[in-house]
Amino acid sequence: MGTFLGHLMPAMFFLSYSLYYSVLVSLALLRKQKVLKPPLSPREKRGRWQLVPGEGAAKVSIALIGILTEWFFPPGVNRLVIIDWKDPQRSFLFKDAWHHITMYGFFVFSGVVDIMSQWRRERQWVKLERAAEALAFYVLALLMANHLENKSTLEIRVHVLFMVPVLLVALVLSIEVWVPEQPQLWVLKTWMGLVLSSWLLQLSVLLYMPPSGQPWRADNPTDIAFLGIFFCWHLALGIAILATTYGLCSLWHHRFSSWTEATGAGYKLCPTDSRGEELEKLKAEAVLQDGGI
Amino acid sequence: MGTFLGHLMPAMFFLSYSLYYSVLVSLALLRKQKVLKPPLSPREKRGRWQLVPGEGAAKVSIALIGILTEWFFPPGVNRLVIIDWKDPQRSFLFKDAWHHITMYGFFVFSGVVDIMSQWRRERQWVKLERAAEALAFYVLALLMANHLENKSTLEIRVHVLFMVPVLLVALVLSIEVWVPEQPQLWVLKTWMGLVLSSWLLQLSVLLYMPPSGQPWRADNPTDIAFLGIFFCWHLALGIAILATTYGLCSLWHHRFSSWTEATGAGYKLCPTDSRGEELEKLKAEAVLQDGGI
Amino acid sequence: MGTFLGHLMPAMFFLSYSLYYSVLVSLALLRKQKVLKPPLSPREKRGRWQLVPGEGAAKVSIALIGILTEWFFPPGVNRLVIIDWKDPQRSFLFKDAWHHITMYGFFVFSGVVDIMSQWRRERQWVKLERAAEALAFYVLALLMANHLENKSTLEIRVHVLFMVPVLLVALVLSIEVWVPEQPQLWVLKTWMGLVLSSWLLQLSVLLYMPPSGQPWRADNPTDIAFLGIFFCWHLALGIAILATTYGLCSLWHHRFSSWTEATGAGYKLCPTDSRGEELEKLKAEAVLQDGGI
Amino acid sequence: MGTFLGHLMPAMFFLSYSLYYSVLVSLALLRKQKVLKPPLSPREKRGRWQLVPGEGAAKVSIALIGILTEWFFPPGVNRLVIIDWKDPQRSFLFKDAWHHITMYGFFVFSGVVDIMSQWRRERQWVKLERAAEALAFYVLALLMANHLENKSTLEIRVHVLFMVPVLLVALVLSIEVWVPEQPQLWVLKTWMGLVLSSWLLQLSVLLYMPPSGQPWRADNPTDIAFLGIFFCWHLALGIAILATTYGLCSLWHHRFSSWTEATGAGYKLCPTDSRGEELEKLKAEAVLQDGGI
Repeated sequence: MGTFLGHLMPAMFFLSYSLYYSVLVSLALLRKQKVLKPPLSPREKRGRWQLVPGEGAAKVSIALIGILTEWFFPPGVNRLVIIDWKDPQRSFLFKDAWHHITMYGFFVFSGVVDIMSQWRRERQWVKLERAAEALAFYVLALLMANHLENKSTLEIRVHVLFMVPVLLVALVLSIEVWVPEQPQLWVLKTWMGLVLSSWLLQLSVLLYMPPSGQPWRADNPTDIAFLGIFFCWHLALGIAILATTYGLCSLWHHRFSSWTEATGAGYKLCPTDSRGEELEKLKAEAVLQDGGI
Repeated sequence: MGTFLGHLMPAMFFLSYSLYYSVLVSLALLRKQKVLKPPLSPREKRGRWQLVPGEGAAKVSIALIGILTEWFFPPGVNRLVIIDWKDPQRSFLFKDAWHHITMYGFFVFSGVVDIMSQWRRERQWVKLERAAEALAFYVLALLMANHLENKSTLEIRVHVLFMVPVLLVALVLSIEVWVPEQPQLWVLKTWMGLVLSSWLLQLSVLLYMPPSGQPWRADNPTDIAFLGIFFCWHLALGIAILATTYGLCSLWHHRFSSWTEATGAGYKLCPTDSRGEELEKLKAEAVLQDGGI
Repeated sequence: MGTFLGHLMPAMFFLSYSLYYSVLVSLALLRKQKVLKPPLSPREKRGRWQLVPGEGAAKVSIALIGILTEWFFPPGVNRLVIIDWKDPQRSFLFKDAWHHITMYGFFVFSGVVDIMSQWRRERQWVKLERAAEALAFYVLALLMANHLENKSTLEIRVHVLFMVPVLLVALVLSIEVWVPEQPQLWVLKTWMGLVLSSWLLQLSVLLYMPPSGQPWRADNPTDIAFLGIFFCWHLALGIAILATTYGLCSLWHHRFSSWTEATGAGYKLCPTDSRGEELEKLKAEAVLQDGGI
Repeated sequence: MGTFLGHLMPAMFFLSYSLYYSVLVSLALLRKQKVLKPPLSPREKRGRWQLVPGEGAAKVSIALIGILTEWFFPPGVNRLVIIDWKDPQRSFLFKDAWHHITMYGFFVFSGVVDIMSQWRRERQWVKLERAAEALAFYVLALLMANHLENKSTLEIRVHVLFMVPVLLVALVLSIEVWVPEQPQLWVLKTWMGLVLSSWLLQLSVLLYMPPSGQPWRADNPTDIAFLGIFFCWHLALGIAILATTYGLCSLWHHRFSSWTEATGAGYKLCPTDSRGEELEKLKAEAVLQDGGI
């Protein structure tokens, strides 16, 4: 829905998802993990951190709520038709609603792939996960470009700037289909996720509820110019959020590991006689287990 | 020809070709093959699946039919002239026909390269095959861009969206000249092939025979907006077709391999005393032979 | 500030920075170094050349001066407000100043990252340095694109040409996050830095103080055409400066090494019984020390 | 000069250069060489084929002739001024001439780098050769884009299509700075060279001397459409020339090697007791020497 709430909901979803990812990435960097999400052990229970199925379920449910809202909100409305058959011109109906539903639909698909990838734990499926996520973001960008038509300069500019982080996230996810598990890409992806969600918040506020009580004027070059400036500030804001999360995780990580050492390092394995790579792997696992408790 | 039939024929050709490829890719993925099309053995007879020469011949014959249709269809017409010599202005004739003929011509060339590559079985020629195919798709995109001029917004939009999968296929084929045999690229190529053929079908129906009996209106922003939505649905349709093909192939593959095991695994080789990589290679060959029977 | 001085200051900063880099790159190429800036030794004192903390400090101080100038120059002016609260329309103020401040801000950030990277000497931080630098240049290009609106053709063309080296530098720096220490990229980066600073000089002269006393005319196609020609000459000028620096460094390098040999090669290490790679590393270090004295 | 001759001369130069390269590439492919141009031996005399210094000299001399023609042709003209100092507006003069001179200038620079690279035979210089060549083509494309302004649709289209092979050649040369000696890139480069030179010929004929005696009409969509078709035919023509050259070289190569075998293989080395890689290298050298005689 082209309303304040219709923009706020996905913004909040993207923001919480990006924050969750920023914690995940910070911990992975602190623990010097080779993979962002360690694969589930066959025993299915490895601490509270591996909430991976939750991700897929969250995507599917949020996107489904979005779709249902587009169709049947406010109550009494039914937008589940495309063509107005009564009209002799057979004109199309609810353009914007179908735009948003298509966007949500691809996120549902990405969520479904995530859930299926949980069941079948093969390397092939991790690539599919990335590809489905990338596709969802590409479709977002494509429909956003389609969305722009017959809008004011202000809305066009706002949406074009929104497409920048969307396309970058899509690009990073596409690259991860071929070259997965690169720490640089984790950081870039999370940062761009933070930027796109904070920009979406700004966008919903700016277009529908300007705090100064004055709408932005599309015909005013100064207003248009400040859009670009504000976008750059959102880039900086994303960095600030990421740095804060990393700082907090770092504090937690160091406090926790020192506490673990003091109390005797509970469940640590005893890699006394292994050597070289095997030792390293065990150590990494031990660290992960420590962190996971 | 800028007619319903003129668009339907290449659409059907692309569709059947993409479906054939989706079967090929599904089987290759299920058998964990390293190459999409195993090279022909010197003995020339390795089961019914290696119909590789058929590909080149199909390309050449379909494209030649296309060219002849452009020149001499409907009967009595002759479009085999470029310049109207009687006109003192020496104006050019049959712009669209020559556009289509040039497109078909490059597919003929790609088919000829395929056939020649059959005779000379060198690694160099496989690269040439990919390059010639890529060229055919690049020329398709270039002439499509040329085609757009002085058309309505609707036709321009329809063709621009058509160029997206065409350019992606061309790009994948160009990459395959350098980095051949990547399963991710097989899937992307096949999917984009399905999208472009189903979109071409949609396009021919939409521009020449709209099912609602009402032509789309180029001046209506809603109609234009639904183009983008429909294109995204075609993306999803391509995924659905690909998933269905993979599912069917998977069923067939598993049923077949269990049946083979039950009946004694006919022609299987006996790699009893080989080791390491040699064993693996033999096993792969055995699997291929099993699958091929 | 959209004045001659406001353009001259960053131009001079970029120019001196690029010249410093061209010396650094020339010496690194002459000494066949593997890394552009050898990491500081733990003993903190390794000759006069490792002025690395200086870089970050220079960036921060110059950019801060720039920001303060934008806010409070000429004296008595205060541009530290964004919204004119007295205006019932809540219009934005000082568009250009905030543009420039945002640009400078990201260079401050890059400088801060450089300084912090000095304290923590990890590989991760070198990548962050590159990423922050790249970000500063991307923001520069983005705001430059934003800057162009409602300007004359001449200014647009001048700034678009300026964006070419800026984007190339940003691209090279982004690549260096993944593939650091490539001599080709050092040279490209330095060259582009020289081009962008000399072009910025040209731009400030051309827009605000044409030497012929005649302003360029935006409506004159000849003037616009000569912009492109002059930009190509600046490309050649950049090559000339780089070649000159390399030549001078080469002279200095050869004279210096022969002098060192003659005087007994002061602090050289004695790698008499080491072999293979260890020997090479020591030699490289020795050469570095020689050069650094 | 914007005349028939002014376009014909560079076209002929590019054509002969591309033909020379197509022979070089064909022979390199037939002999399965690892490098396109084997480095000169220290003895300076290794058969008639290593005319490498000739390349640089040809570039420099042709480009210098081009520059002099732009300045002083037809005789009596002097275009060696940029600003008309008598005009109070200080207007610029001879826009097109300076455009062309700048283009030629960068080819002179590329030739000079080639010649210097002959003297100093280091790996670094081969990269510089490629970079200088790439720069010349990038400048060509940049100035071509600048050239287009205030021209007719026909000229713009013709030049944009010309920029396609120019940019591809520049791109290939840039890639070769990092990843040199890839047979696929040799072929692509040579093909694009043939396309750009034949298109430049077409362009000079089409714009200044149409064979039908009728100029093309910029306002006629059919004429514009046929531009794209003809460009695709030039792509095919390039392939045809390349295939013909390869065929002729193949004939010559096979006839020559059989003749060499029959007469006793003149200068062949005797690698009787070397093994493995050394043997291969010697064989390659022997083949080269045979071919070179």
